Amino acid sequence: MSCDRLWLNARLATMAEGASSAYGAIEDGVIAARDGRIVHVGPRATAPAFSAAETIDCEGRWITPGLIDCHTHLVYGGDRAHEFELRLKGASYEEIARAGGGIVSSVKATRGASEDELFASADKRLAALIAEGVTTVEIKSGYGLDTASEVKVLAVARRLGRERPVRVLTTFLGAHAVPPEFKGRSGDYIDLVTGPMLDAVAAENLADAVDVFCEGIAFSPEETARVFAAAKAKGLAIKIHAEQLSNLGGAALAAGMGALSADHLEHLDEAGVIAMAKAGTVAVILPGAFYFLRETVKPPIELLRKHGVPIALATDANPGTSPLTSPLLTMNMGCTLFRLTPEEALAGMTRNAARALGLQDETGTLEAGKACDLAIWEIERPAELAYRIGFNPLHARIRNGQ
Amino acid sequence: MSCDRLWLNARLATMAEGASSAYGAIEDGVIAARDGRIVHVGPRATAPAFSAAETIDCEGRWITPGLIDCHTHLVYGGDRAHEFELRLKGASYEEIARAGGGIVSSVKATRGASEDELFASADKRLAALIAEGVTTVEIKSGYGLDTASEVKVLAVARRLGRERPVRVLTTFLGAHAVPPEFKGRSGDYIDLVTGPMLDAVAAENLADAVDVFCEGIAFSPEETARVFAAAKAKGLAIKIHAEQLSNLGGAALAAGMGALSADHLEHLDEAGVIAMAKAGTVAVILPGAFYFLRETVKPPIELLRKHGVPIALATDANPGTSPLTSPLLTMNMGCTLFRLTPEEALAGMTRNAARALGLQDETGTLEAGKACDLAIWEIERPAELAYRIGFNPLHARIRNGQ
Ligand SMILES: [Zn+2]
Ligand SMILES: [Zn+2]
Repeated sequence: MSCDRLWLNARLATMAEGASSAYGAIEDGVIAARDGRIVHVGPRATAPAFSAAETIDCEGRWITPGLIDCHTHLVYGGDRAHEFELRLKGASYEEIARAGGGIVSSVKATRGASEDELFASADKRLAALIAEGVTTVEIKSGYGLDTASEVKVLAVARRLGRERPVRVLTTFLGAHAVPPEFKGRSGDYIDLVTGPMLDAVAAENLADAVDVFCEGIAFSPEETARVFAAAKAKGLAIKIHAEQLSNLGGAALAAGMGALSADHLEHLDEAGVIAMAKAGTVAVILPGAFYFLRETVKPPIELLRKHGVPIALATDANPGTSPLTSPLLTMNMGCTLFRLTPEEALAGMTRNAARALGLQDETGTLEAGKACDLAIWEIERPAELAYRIGFNPLHARIRNGQ
Repeated sequence: MSCDRLWLNARLATMAEGASSAYGAIEDGVIAARDGRIVHVGPRATAPAFSAAETIDCEGRWITPGLIDCHTHLVYGGDRAHEFELRLKGASYEEIARAGGGIVSSVKATRGASEDELFASADKRLAALIAEGVTTVEIKSGYGLDTASEVKVLAVARRLGRERPVRVLTTFLGAHAVPPEFKGRSGDYIDLVTGPMLDAVAAENLADAVDVFCEGIAFSPEETARVFAAAKAKGLAIKIHAEQLSNLGGAALAAGMGALSADHLEHLDEAGVIAMAKAGTVAVILPGAFYFLRETVKPPIELLRKHGVPIALATDANPGTSPLTSPLLTMNMGCTLFRLTPEEALAGMTRNAARALGLQDETGTLEAGKACDLAIWEIERPAELAYRIGFNPLHARIRNGQ
């Protein structure tokens, strides 16, 4: 068999579903790629003979699937460091709001920024993800909150995917917050989101999915359902921010409408878990926001395990509640704060993250037929990825076989 | 005036004691260095005319003192990722101990490693610190626990200081734990520590200070006092791990004997705080261990502020309770978990960390006469250093003017 590139002398954490070994591990493994895709994965002993244009000796290093950050808000203007400082100096929420803080400050800065400015600032955050082995990232809009600004943010996200060596999926999150000019008129704002805003986004093919923040401080389940119906009418996948601060039943609602994922989920109850299990909706947990907001109620990991709901992990990178751009630290937080096992954490940023984006046939495991997206690590065992804190053992990252 | 290097067009966070502006900030500042030392710091408007061999335009970037990590256990054999995984898979402490886990596993791996192996593994962790702007690091022994191994570890720490562009201070922590061969005979082990072991360490000038882990699971206040007396007889500074899991009065004991710092301090009471204030002993808080061990009792930050005890922050980088090698994340954890302000967090890794090492005349602030140890950052305001999580905005690092 001929191939473009052959990785030899590697330990593989294939993360294949239902593998008999932990991490789907293969000692002394081989990966062959042709035209950017994996054509063979397995033990060296049983591998076919390959004639390879290039052979890479991995010297015993571990190879995992390229990491997938399936929930980020990477494109926004400004930052919230000043607000962080004011709060720690004892300012009240009211004082911070008067000083221009809160989500409104990010919306203002995002609306005021040019596409190039948004690209440049998001590009640095994206580089931090890539440096830790990310090959696929989801980016949501939601700090524009008017048609032109939402389109601008999603266009920047698409451009990142074109100009950087990473697969970018985009999600339209017009229903992130009620913008100041619609204060007290959330229904009118949902008219805008489901009408002209979604039309503009869909017309330019700027979104792969549509998301809603379903919460007391954001949108009701009824408003959420309206947005989902409009999204489905456009043929777009749906996702939800649900059960972060209270239990409104958003996850079950979204699952019932076929959502790819429900995200956050600290206040999810067993009925919601069962609805997700039935629909195959992925639970995306976001320990960075839990940590940064000093929450105390944790997502129901035991119930998710019991009912077989796939668990993904993501940075939730955003300026207000999770200014986190380290997938490895996210894995550590998943283990330390939520008691995931290191194997669950790695599955959460590979196989299950792919599923949360509808990409389970394309990436997320080391299996023949998928894109050749690899992370090669200077580690002794896969658990090290989640164990270390603030250390990056990435040796090399391969996207589409390159 | 002539100088070797001149940094212009910079915003300076001098962190000078008693400065009138937050962070001791100087907008449009200038730093001049000669022979590795700062010869001038101030606003450009009032700076003398310099003839500089090299001039660096900082393009408005922020300069802080080089960061100081004043409490690490950077040199050890092996890692504890496997134990981390076993615990998360539900193994009991007993099962982990039977599987060879716990501090004993690090002692065994450290004893079994060659100097070159210890150097190579610590060097990677040190590189992670340096990459985030660290110019001074303290390294403790304490995973050898026999004379030859403690000497070996301290020799590796000294070698890191010689071969890498960073100032390394070493601390002899023979009294870290009772080694297995002395089980039930801690008094006999303290005889070894204060006798042949300390003699060997001092004879080769391998330690700048001596530290003791004063805790129910380690050494009593009486044993601690014995070690401190022996250290002082050799002219060595003293430090203590105290009040981490319970309140044995170790911090007050150490302060009464003139300790540079007392570290951890979750269970410190007001009497201990007052004793530290009186002695000028620095409080070194270690949020990484608090986070990793999921502790709930926090150090008494308000009392430390009230009595004017200087607060330093450190990674506590170690395999068992804080596998953390990011000073920036440590600052975020200090703010997020312990409610330090970003300015306190930065002082904790600069000015007060220098004081915890007895280096307050040498480094820790941007002031004329000190070593020219700088960190230059791609940030809009100093609070960003503590606000972001898992992002490194370091632009350049200068050690001794280079
Ligand atoms: Zn989010
Ligand atoms: Zn320590």
